[in-house]
Amino acid sequence: MKSLSSLQQLIEAFRHLPGIGPKSAQRMAYHLLQHDRDGAQQLSVALANAISSVRHCERCNTFTESEVCEMCSDQERDASLLCITETPADQMMIEQTLTFKGYYFVLMGSLSPLDGIGPKEIHFDKLIKRATDGIVKEVVLATSFNNEGEATAHYISEMLKVRGIRVSRLARGVPVGAELEYVDVGTIARAFLDRRST
Amino acid sequence: MKSLSSLQQLIEAFRHLPGIGPKSAQRMAYHLLQHDRDGAQQLSVALANAISSVRHCERCNTFTESEVCEMCSDQERDASLLCITETPADQMMIEQTLTFKGYYFVLMGSLSPLDGIGPKEIHFDKLIKRATDGIVKEVVLATSFNNEGEATAHYISEMLKVRGIRVSRLARGVPVGAELEYVDVGTIARAFLDRRST
Ligand SMILES: [Zn+2]
Ligand SMILES: [Zn+2]
Repeated sequence: MKSLSSLQQLIEAFRHLPGIGPKSAQRMAYHLLQHDRDGAQQLSVALANAISSVRHCERCNTFTESEVCEMCSDQERDASLLCITETPADQMMIEQTLTFKGYYFVLMGSLSPLDGIGPKEIHFDKLIKRATDGIVKEVVLATSFNNEGEATAHYISEMLKVRGIRVSRLARGVPVGAELEYVDVGTIARAFLDRRST
Repeated sequence: MKSLSSLQQLIEAFRHLPGIGPKSAQRMAYHLLQHDRDGAQQLSVALANAISSVRHCERCNTFTESEVCEMCSDQERDASLLCITETPADQMMIEQTLTFKGYYFVLMGSLSPLDGIGPKEIHFDKLIKRATDGIVKEVVLATSFNNEGEATAHYISEMLKVRGIRVSRLARGVPVGAELEYVDVGTIARAFLDRRST
């Protein structure tokens, strides 16, 4: 056998995708070459285009093709509020709720020391610079409620509070529409502790 | 919003991969752009190379970069035997058993009328031409033992037998190393009917 064939190289390249093992990589390569060469062509071009044009917003760190993203360029938002999310997808979810009219900062991850993801990897210096611009009054932490997200929220909260920034966290509690019987005990316990007067 | 951004186009393009929904496509795009731009570049180039250089072997129909693949070019094999598989992966499995020294024909699929996969899609004309070269004496059907594979084997068997070609099928039976207690009843029934004198 000489060096890897184009087919073998393609199968190897698919292994770069998250969660794709050798069997899936092979299936993807076979499928595209056998049934969807137009799709393969589109994917090749889309990858090349994205690599060359997608970068991080100077202000909020999300993916964008400009220096500053569309949302950060929107002058109609409340500059005193800054919401912190782990991913652009989380940011979009919050936008869809129509409950938040401030700006965002996207960490592009969450603290996970065991995986080598520390403050540097979640762009902590950029966040501090953004949050201490003198205009931001409150930072809303919207990281996930799993272990990494909670640790990330705790760390950022401590670092911002010593700098005099007010920090809040999305409320935990019973999901809207849920029947108590089917909600886990931890969630009910938290909802009890955080109960609000009506 | 203007036309789709490079990021959105990339997410759409990942949908061409089998079994990839919108969430997975987004996760793949984010992952490559955030953590593995070299991998994205490799995948882009590998796709373009494979599209331009991978084609089907003139003789056995498998993927190759030449007119005739390496295995078909091997003069040491037994030209009287032709083994039919559904995929190049199945072909490789049989090669690894070291029990077969003939040539192959790869259908690149199996009959599935409900999915629009008929004789044309499994390259039936090419197979007939290959099997009736006057040198092939026996065709070994190594399609899968699921419904589509069995139907494909049955169809090909009928079409080759009327053309005077001897046709055989891989034996069904109890897997090597299996304890009878844990083998399904259908397999045991088949092994009983196909029992061999010792
Ligand atoms: Zn931005
Ligand atoms: Zn061949």
